[in-house]
Amino acid sequence: MDGHVNFTLSDRLRKSPYYESTLKAGAKTFTIYNHMIMPTSYEGAEADYWNLMNNVTMWDVAAERQVEVTGNDAYKFVEYITSRDLSKLQIGQGKYALITDEDGGIINDPIILRLGESHFWLSIADSDVLLWTRGLACGLGWDVQLSEPDVSPLAIQGPNHLPLMIDLFGNWVKDIKYFFFKEVELEGIPLIVQKSGWSKQGGFELYLRDGSLGGKLWDIVANAGKKYDIKPGTPNNIERVESGLFSWGNDMDIKSNPLELPLGNFCQLDKEAEYLSRKALHKIRSEGPSKKLVGLIVDGAPFIGGCASPWKVMSDNQICGKVSSAAFSPRLKINMAMATIDNGNNEIGSEVKVETPWGARSAKVTSIPFN
Amino acid sequence: MDGHVNFTLSDRLRKSPYYESTLKAGAKTFTIYNHMIMPTSYEGAEADYWNLMNNVTMWDVAAERQVEVTGNDAYKFVEYITSRDLSKLQIGQGKYALITDEDGGIINDPIILRLGESHFWLSIADSDVLLWTRGLACGLGWDVQLSEPDVSPLAIQGPNHLPLMIDLFGNWVKDIKYFFFKEVELEGIPLIVQKSGWSKQGGFELYLRDGSLGGKLWDIVANAGKKYDIKPGTPNNIERVESGLFSWGNDMDIKSNPLELPLGNFCQLDKEAEYLSRKALHKIRSEGPSKKLVGLIVDGAPFIGGCASPWKVMSDNQICGKVSSAAFSPRLKINMAMATIDNGNNEIGSEVKVETPWGARSAKVTSIPFN
Repeated sequence: MDGHVNFTLSDRLRKSPYYESTLKAGAKTFTIYNHMIMPTSYEGAEADYWNLMNNVTMWDVAAERQVEVTGNDAYKFVEYITSRDLSKLQIGQGKYALITDEDGGIINDPIILRLGESHFWLSIADSDVLLWTRGLACGLGWDVQLSEPDVSPLAIQGPNHLPLMIDLFGNWVKDIKYFFFKEVELEGIPLIVQKSGWSKQGGFELYLRDGSLGGKLWDIVANAGKKYDIKPGTPNNIERVESGLFSWGNDMDIKSNPLELPLGNFCQLDKEAEYLSRKALHKIRSEGPSKKLVGLIVDGAPFIGGCASPWKVMSDNQICGKVSSAAFSPRLKINMAMATIDNGNNEIGSEVKVETPWGARSAKVTSIPFN
Repeated sequence: MDGHVNFTLSDRLRKSPYYESTLKAGAKTFTIYNHMIMPTSYEGAEADYWNLMNNVTMWDVAAERQVEVTGNDAYKFVEYITSRDLSKLQIGQGKYALITDEDGGIINDPIILRLGESHFWLSIADSDVLLWTRGLACGLGWDVQLSEPDVSPLAIQGPNHLPLMIDLFGNWVKDIKYFFFKEVELEGIPLIVQKSGWSKQGGFELYLRDGSLGGKLWDIVANAGKKYDIKPGTPNNIERVESGLFSWGNDMDIKSNPLELPLGNFCQLDKEAEYLSRKALHKIRSEGPSKKLVGLIVDGAPFIGGCASPWKVMSDNQICGKVSSAAFSPRLKINMAMATIDNGNNEIGSEVKVETPWGARSAKVTSIPFN
C-alpha cells in the first residue's frame, strides 16, 4: 500500500546541505536515498506535478551522491564498469550509463560526468556504488582512487526554467547541450551547471561543491525565481512514470540486466574497450532475455498514490510478472504502470491482470514513455 | 535535532517479512536500514526501554541483512576482510568483527557466522557490504560466491527471555554459549537460533530462512510470549548507549579506523592469515591513532531524544571532536554521549564543552559502557 509513516531521525541518515531550507519551504514528506533524507513532496504529489509541468520548480537532490574517480587508470576503469561506449565522452560532457557486474546485473544507473582526462563523477541512484567500485578497484590492483566529494545537486526543472537560468548564469545556458556541463561560480559559490535532471520537462542541475553554502545557494535560486513564481519541488512519481524514467531499486536492481530494459541505446555490447560484463551480456543477448520491462495501461478508478510494494501481474491465473512503479496521470487520465513481464505476455497489446491494492484490474501492455 | 518526519513508502524501501505484524502490534516510528523499513518504537523510547530492561521484548530486525559467502576461497576471503583472527571460528559459532578496507577504514561491523567449512554469513549493519565484497572478490578473481539469502532475524531480548525460549525450543537453549547458534525447525519454519542481539539484556536472534513465514513466526513468538507479558520492541537508543554498543553510520564509518574505537579485543593485527588492511593498520598502530571514541557524561537537564546530527565537542573554544550518539538514562539519571575526540582532550576525566541542540553544556570524558 502506498502511504506515509513516521521516521526517526539519526545521524546515520545524513542531512542535505539544503535540509533546513526544505523544511522552511514546507517539505511535507521525505524518503531515504543513498543514506540521505530527501524531500518527496511539498503541496502533495498532484499539486507538485502541475507546478513542474506548467512552470518551474527547484529540488533538493543532494541525495544523488557523486562517486569521484581519479588516477592513471580512471578512464580504463570507468569503461570497465559499463557496457556504454565512453570513447567519445568529452571533458565537460555527461552520459547516462548502466553500471553492470560480472553477471550483467545492474549495480546502478548513473550519469557519468567527465571533468578531466582522468577525472570522472558517477552521479548515482540509490545504491552504494562507492563500496562496489572501491572493492573492485582494490581487487584489480588498478591505479584508481574512489571517493565521495562534497558535492550536492540542486535541480531546477520545468518548462519555464530558462529565463531563471539566464538571470542566474547568463545567456550561455541557452546553448548548452543535454548532459553537457560547465564549471562556474555564483556569488562565490563553486558550482558545476549541467543540463540534466530527473524529469522530462527541461532543466538544469547545479552541483554545489561546498556543502556549507547550501542555504545560501537555495536562497539565491529561490529569490531569483520569485518573479517566475518558482515553487519547491521534488522528483515527482507521476511525471517520471509518464516520462518513462526508471528508478533503481524499483524498476531495476542487481538481479536485472540491461537487455530486459528498453535502454538499448545506452548499451554498446560490442564496444572496443574492455568491460566486466561483456561475457555475461553477450550470453544473454545470444539466448535472448526471458522477460522485459514494459508499460501497462490499467483499467478502473484512478490509483491513489504509487506502488509501494510490487504488484503481481497475472495471465491465466499464473504470475507472469510484477509492477514496480505506478501512477494515475491527471493529464492523460490513465492509470500507468511499469512492469517486468515474462516472454509470452510482454508484447505490445497483450492483455494481463494486475493485482493492485484496490483489487484485480485488467491491463494492456504498451510502450514507454506514456506521453 | 531529534524528531520525526513523514516518510513516503516505495518499493525501493523494502518491507520486512514482519512488517504487517509490526504495524498490527502498534509500531509508531520507523527508520531505513539496509534499504529496509525497520520499526524504532512502539510505546515510545522510554517505555520501550523499561520493557526491555525489566522483562522480555521481540524485535523485527530483518534489516540486519545477511551476506552469504560460499566457494572454495570462502574462508580465506572472510579472513582477508577483517583483522579479527577467525582461525578458531567453529562451525556453529559467530564472532563480532570489523570489516576493513585497504586504508583501514571500517566498511561494516557484522557478526560473522560460520555455517560450514566454506559457508559463512556476515550479519551486517547499515552499509552495502554485499556490493563491496562482490566488487573485491571479482577484482581478486577468487573462487567466492556472494549473495543475499532469504534470511530475516527476529530478536528476543530482555532479562526474562529464557523461559520463553525454553517453551519454544527446549532446554538446550540454556547451554548455548554467546554467539553460538543451532539450525532448527519451529512448526515447520526453518530457523537458525543464535544467542545474540543488539542489547546487553540477554536474548537470542531467530534467523528466519523463509520470508513467506514471517507472519507465522511473529504470531508463534507473540502467543508463546503472552504468559511472560512479552512486548514488541526495537533496538533501543537509550539501552544501547548505556551498554556501549556502537552503531555503524553513527559512531563509525569508512573514515574511522578500528584503533580509534575501544574494540581492541576484536582486532588481532598480527594474526597469521593474510588480510587486506594489515599494512594500513600496522602504520596507524605504529604512529598511534590521533583521536578516540570515548564516553561523555554531560551536565544539565535531561536530553530530549538522541543525537540526530553530530554535536560539536569544544575545548578552549576550538572544535576537538563530535558526539555521534546520545541519550538520557532514566535509570542512571545521567546524560550519556559517545564522542570521537582528538588526542589531548580524550583522556578519562578530561573536561570539555558539548554544543547540544539545547545549548552548550559542560561534559566529562568517561569510559564506555556507562553501566
